[in-house]
Amino acid sequence: MSHIDLIRAAAERLNGHAVRTPLMNSPFLDEIAGRRVYVKAECLQHTGSFKYRGGRSAVSALDPGTRAKGVLAFSSGNHAQGVARAAAEFDVPSVIIMPNDAPQLKIDNTRALGAEVILYDRPNGESREALGEQIQAERGMTLIKPYDEDQVIAGQGTCGLEIAEQARDLGVTEVDVLVCCGGGGFTSGIALALEAEAPDLRVRPCEPEGFDDVTRSLKSGHIETNNQQSGNICDAILTPAPGEITFPILNRLCGSGIVITEDEALQAMALIFQRLKLVAEPGGAAAVAAALFHANEIEGDAVICTISGGNVDAPMFARALEHANT
Amino acid sequence: MSHIDLIRAAAERLNGHAVRTPLMNSPFLDEIAGRRVYVKAECLQHTGSFKYRGGRSAVSALDPGTRAKGVLAFSSGNHAQGVARAAAEFDVPSVIIMPNDAPQLKIDNTRALGAEVILYDRPNGESREALGEQIQAERGMTLIKPYDEDQVIAGQGTCGLEIAEQARDLGVTEVDVLVCCGGGGFTSGIALALEAEAPDLRVRPCEPEGFDDVTRSLKSGHIETNNQQSGNICDAILTPAPGEITFPILNRLCGSGIVITEDEALQAMALIFQRLKLVAEPGGAAAVAAALFHANEIEGDAVICTISGGNVDAPMFARALEHANT
Repeated sequence: MSHIDLIRAAAERLNGHAVRTPLMNSPFLDEIAGRRVYVKAECLQHTGSFKYRGGRSAVSALDPGTRAKGVLAFSSGNHAQGVARAAAEFDVPSVIIMPNDAPQLKIDNTRALGAEVILYDRPNGESREALGEQIQAERGMTLIKPYDEDQVIAGQGTCGLEIAEQARDLGVTEVDVLVCCGGGGFTSGIALALEAEAPDLRVRPCEPEGFDDVTRSLKSGHIETNNQQSGNICDAILTPAPGEITFPILNRLCGSGIVITEDEALQAMALIFQRLKLVAEPGGAAAVAAALFHANEIEGDAVICTISGGNVDAPMFARALEHANT
Repeated sequence: MSHIDLIRAAAERLNGHAVRTPLMNSPFLDEIAGRRVYVKAECLQHTGSFKYRGGRSAVSALDPGTRAKGVLAFSSGNHAQGVARAAAEFDVPSVIIMPNDAPQLKIDNTRALGAEVILYDRPNGESREALGEQIQAERGMTLIKPYDEDQVIAGQGTCGLEIAEQARDLGVTEVDVLVCCGGGGFTSGIALALEAEAPDLRVRPCEPEGFDDVTRSLKSGHIETNNQQSGNICDAILTPAPGEITFPILNRLCGSGIVITEDEALQAMALIFQRLKLVAEPGGAAAVAAALFHANEIEGDAVICTISGGNVDAPMFARALEHANT
């Protein structure tokens, strides 16, 4: 099946399960951006991020016999929760391999969603891949990759179908759609959906400073990698490089990337709190930060931007609130 | 017209203007409450609270000639913003009379929504009513009362129509609907809508300790007043007494009230942040607090509760975050 057929099929499987998240706006944000700003609030998705879409899509696409043996994921973050919840909904086992230095709360949450959490000794260099292969061999579980996987991209693309429909209902045409971008699963999924359903909407990947692998890759025309793997508050969208499957899609369909600073992400979180009454995580606020603070890199009288997730702990959110004008 | 006819007419006038707010849930909240918890997120309404519904309903119900002269409201809070935005949408003037010791940000926001803000000298006992009468006489503006006004109740009732429909879609029947309650406009509007559309759903007013006028009034069968007017963080739902119009409706249709503490409101705000990725103000979290921490006062395997608003400043939200388990 083509990508768009996979997306449409995923939308049918997700119907009645995924939240159809609202496209929101505020006159106060419009004023800052100098154009109308529409915000697709995927922080309101189950498990607090768009990752539930891809998780549910991939788990539901497995044939029942394979699915019954369970699924496996490597993740310390949003993908873990999305896959764990999807597996629990199908009443099949899930194993999430997490580093033993992950925050206890993320470990607890993933367990509470029904997953078996297996910790690997990251600080001492234990290989999570070797551990994963061992579990696959022993239990016959299926690995669900976080972004470079067709059914995961298809699930994230269902968000793009909703954006196309919601933009049409509002009469919003010929605008940029800013997407928080890590490995490119969300960005490529949305781009594929818009190509079919709203080709006058153009996706722009948004990335944090120092982790602008996609922006550089789009410039050079081939996959560029980041020099570092951590050290930025936008943890949800830090990945080594765009994927083998996602990059050709991004390269074909996306406009240029927009790179935001940590401080802009925090300011955007504060404005999202104040004006939309939503909780965004730092990486989840990257696209809104681009809309508000990089207005000169955008054209048109309106812009659509995603909030990709809201899984932020209280101390980090308190830090963002210090940027609030209250 | 009967109340329910007014509500249905208001729903037609609000269609395409008010946000149809989502009914949300989280397995983590279900576990705390010991039953399924569904949350009607009115903090996602325009201006950050349900008050936009009543403001838009009242302004849109005026005949065009009267409306053109403008509208007037007394409010330092959510009602001010609801009326100001509704007036701006009809391109008619609005005057909001606010105390001169109101927070500058609320004054600024109300102005930014298009209202003329007139300050009265509350600390020195200036009468806002006299000021209001003077403006009505001079400019022929119509006063929009915050709750004891049929068209305002009708607007708030449109939220009840949505709850009835959303509960039906989920197959949720015979449950309590917990509503954050001040003067009773929101509570009576929802109760009237449910009486017609989902009579097996019963409204329960939720109030802060020390400001439980409605709870006591429902017990005694006549209007009881609060001894104090301020001194509780749940500012949005502090009113002297239930209204002359609202109380008979509450008395006829509601179950007993539930009284929550300030600490429970803050804990609920933290859990709403963590599990629903929403911003609730203290008074707006009262019903969720009742669902989570007064489970033994509720029956049934599920409960619906409202978040009435999210207009909270950063320092108060930071205080709530200190209750978060992260």
